[in-house]
Amino acid sequence: MLSQKTKTLLTKLSQKKYRKEMLAFVVEGIKGVEEALAHADVLMLIVDGAKRDESIFSSLIAKAETEEILVEYAGHKDIEAMKYTETFPGVMAVVAMPEEQDDIDADTIIILDRVNDPGNLGTIIRTADWFGIHTIILSEGSVDPYNEKVVRSTMGSIFRAHIVQSHNVLSDVEYLKETGYSIAALDMRGTPIQKSSATKKQVLLFGSESHGLSEELRALVDTSYTIPGKGQAESLNLAMSVGIALYQLS
Amino acid sequence: MLSQKTKTLLTKLSQKKYRKEMLAFVVEGIKGVEEALAHADVLMLIVDGAKRDESIFSSLIAKAETEEILVEYAGHKDIEAMKYTETFPGVMAVVAMPEEQDDIDADTIIILDRVNDPGNLGTIIRTADWFGIHTIILSEGSVDPYNEKVVRSTMGSIFRAHIVQSHNVLSDVEYLKETGYSIAALDMRGTPIQKSSATKKQVLLFGSESHGLSEELRALVDTSYTIPGKGQAESLNLAMSVGIALYQLS
Repeated sequence: MLSQKTKTLLTKLSQKKYRKEMLAFVVEGIKGVEEALAHADVLMLIVDGAKRDESIFSSLIAKAETEEILVEYAGHKDIEAMKYTETFPGVMAVVAMPEEQDDIDADTIIILDRVNDPGNLGTIIRTADWFGIHTIILSEGSVDPYNEKVVRSTMGSIFRAHIVQSHNVLSDVEYLKETGYSIAALDMRGTPIQKSSATKKQVLLFGSESHGLSEELRALVDTSYTIPGKGQAESLNLAMSVGIALYQLS
Repeated sequence: MLSQKTKTLLTKLSQKKYRKEMLAFVVEGIKGVEEALAHADVLMLIVDGAKRDESIFSSLIAKAETEEILVEYAGHKDIEAMKYTETFPGVMAVVAMPEEQDDIDADTIIILDRVNDPGNLGTIIRTADWFGIHTIILSEGSVDPYNEKVVRSTMGSIFRAHIVQSHNVLSDVEYLKETGYSIAALDMRGTPIQKSSATKKQVLLFGSESHGLSEELRALVDTSYTIPGKGQAESLNLAMSVGIALYQLS
């Protein structure tokens, strides 16, 4: 059985307000918890009591205990009451948010303007990690990267990402431009992206699913690219556009 | 208010069994309904009664009435009772499933082995449409392509897709091979996909999110490709892999 304190903690961490206040978030599932134990500051492990003797779970428990991480076991009723997933994947961890680093000097930086779909953001973080890109700046008005759906769809890549939640993305882009970054964006009216190639110090700028790029940001763009299509679909999904751009440019 | 008959119909169509029996499915949202009216056989339109005078909805209603399609209006309580979406997007349509065409002669054919995530399948159908590819064969054990989550994430591309639900994907691939198709697959151990190029009569074969390609299918593959990554992510999301492959090969 989970303690009342833990139940309250989990309920709170399902809300952005409390995640921000407590500087912690939840990751679920074997893969995500493994990555958290390897790369992040795990505050607590919660395991389905009925599964504690299965080898994969007992090795996670052993790892946590070695590092003196608190482990609690969830009973049947605890699991029914959990709101995180439809089916509890047997294990979850409470993880400390990484401190934001202010110095940004990556060769490639992804900036997302008002991305609002958690699955899209998670897939973007995972795909960027695949291509070795870790710096992602989110404009004000974006979905919280520590939202459980985002975390889940990163498949553990969240722990290798350097995510900056900007308070003024416009001035961030201006600053990056001044320090030598070229600003590239995807746009329906750009040059075919096949003609592009990777350059040093590059910002890749993507607009939101519903509103595209703001006019102010668009004015700062040095080069616009498009992913040419032959069919009749109106657009590509945002995460797909980002993934194809990263594939082409990396 | 919706009639009792319509309420029963909608409840039934949320289940695969009844979709198959009735050869009909549901599409929600303005974009999806517009595409259905343009490309498919719409059996019925359901509009939020409170929104019927808004211009976008009234033009959809006018279009339906011109084509003698039954229109019903949903009341506040009907909408609360609807299970389809968390927020009803104001309009939905009941659409007849297209008849399966048996003759397959597309230049590029996508085959998915046991894809099980509705969002992935929907994104694959949408992305394939973007690149002008319309023939998609689903192996036995795949998610139903007329599942409401699949339909929603195709963003209307489902109405331009030629989807074949195979009863024996192994013999289908053997048959395509005999009739001159080359069989390409994505695989962690393949040639970098940058070295590939589009060819005529090509099958692109993708394994499931959790199990990859079956051994029997793998034995039929002519060329394996991989999408090289530099980071530490264990894999790309399935829809992302398909999208990048289509971008490269088209």
